[in-house]
Amino acid sequence: MKHIILLRHGQSEWNLENRFTGWTDVELSEKGREEAKEAGRLIKASGLEPRYYFTSYLKRAIHTLEIAAAEMDRDWVPVIKDWHLNERHYGALQGLNKAETAAKYGEEQVHLWRRSFDVLPPLLTPDDERYPGHDPRYGMLPSADLPLSESLKDTIKRVHACWDEVIAPKVSMYDTVLIAAHGNSLRGLAMMLLNLTAEEVVGLEIPTGKPWVFTLDDRMRVTKTEYL
Amino acid sequence: MKHIILLRHGQSEWNLENRFTGWTDVELSEKGREEAKEAGRLIKASGLEPRYYFTSYLKRAIHTLEIAAAEMDRDWVPVIKDWHLNERHYGALQGLNKAETAAKYGEEQVHLWRRSFDVLPPLLTPDDERYPGHDPRYGMLPSADLPLSESLKDTIKRVHACWDEVIAPKVSMYDTVLIAAHGNSLRGLAMMLLNLTAEEVVGLEIPTGKPWVFTLDDRMRVTKTEYL
Repeated sequence: MKHIILLRHGQSEWNLENRFTGWTDVELSEKGREEAKEAGRLIKASGLEPRYYFTSYLKRAIHTLEIAAAEMDRDWVPVIKDWHLNERHYGALQGLNKAETAAKYGEEQVHLWRRSFDVLPPLLTPDDERYPGHDPRYGMLPSADLPLSESLKDTIKRVHACWDEVIAPKVSMYDTVLIAAHGNSLRGLAMMLLNLTAEEVVGLEIPTGKPWVFTLDDRMRVTKTEYL
Repeated sequence: MKHIILLRHGQSEWNLENRFTGWTDVELSEKGREEAKEAGRLIKASGLEPRYYFTSYLKRAIHTLEIAAAEMDRDWVPVIKDWHLNERHYGALQGLNKAETAAKYGEEQVHLWRRSFDVLPPLLTPDDERYPGHDPRYGMLPSADLPLSESLKDTIKRVHACWDEVIAPKVSMYDTVLIAAHGNSLRGLAMMLLNLTAEEVVGLEIPTGKPWVFTLDDRMRVTKTEYL
């Protein structure tokens, strides 16, 4: 029997301002830090003992993991940080206030960008300062890997690649792992683990700061899910 | 040209109480957290940009790294946690107050344990609760690797193994790395990088929270050292 714990980071400073965040590397708010602590307390109280951690390249997920690990007294557990677990890239919407975006493009268009499976938000151009190629953390990646914008489908595709190449081999070695990431990258993992349809995954809302535990049998099939 | 930054963790809760800490996993004090922040500020101001992090299995070093990384805005850099970078294991002295130890064993004996290169402090027995084999983080290691006590020489030997197998391969791939660890494990790295004698390494005092930068040429020879 194995356990995979998915943990969505808590409130960030931009959630407070209601802006499209995506790959923008914003801090957790004080409330977000409290949510991470509570998540650590819940995992510890459950008796689950993660032996491997995974997180994204974005500090709101990394700090969520670090705070929860300290609370569990399991700071020493190895961690893999992987950009494939980043939030969905929102292209040219990144940084815009959601209300302003709705005023500019119309509510219906914004709803489509946010709630469809395969519609792309407006693309960045590579000379835009928000283009990931300008950030040293992505500088070693081939430009073909760097998004100008992503549909939910694009995000999920890279998350699945990360599962196959990075996470699954560790799950087969260790009984319990913890993945601290983002709403849309965690949707990708849940889609795969639960065999969800595109429609189901679009409708899936994962709460922040609530550890979501998947129990797997020895053939890596999910037998149970539960929120702590 | 390459740079290796050594960073000794700042004050811990047991430093305050003047106890032998070793592998006991104590927290940084508030002052220790401030020292870590200042170290991050200094590295950032120097223009050095670490591409790989190394630390021990002990939270006072791990948190020093995490706090400094946040201050540098380089949370995303990959990290390897390795028990070989742990502090020297103080055997049966771990947890004892230094003044009490001196009263029990004599000042001279305590000085010898603390200041010689190859004298072992009293051994733990494997049924002692302080024996590393009882701690889940060391549970997967062969018992031959688990110390009952260590001389400085023993500590340095395992640090050198970590350099050869873990750190040096990354230094050859990345220009700048940061190693956040402990007084005696960092002595081991300095001994190797600077070709120090046993006598010199015993006399070497590495200040806490001060990033110590080694500049290496392309053949991995040290050409300069400086404290930030």
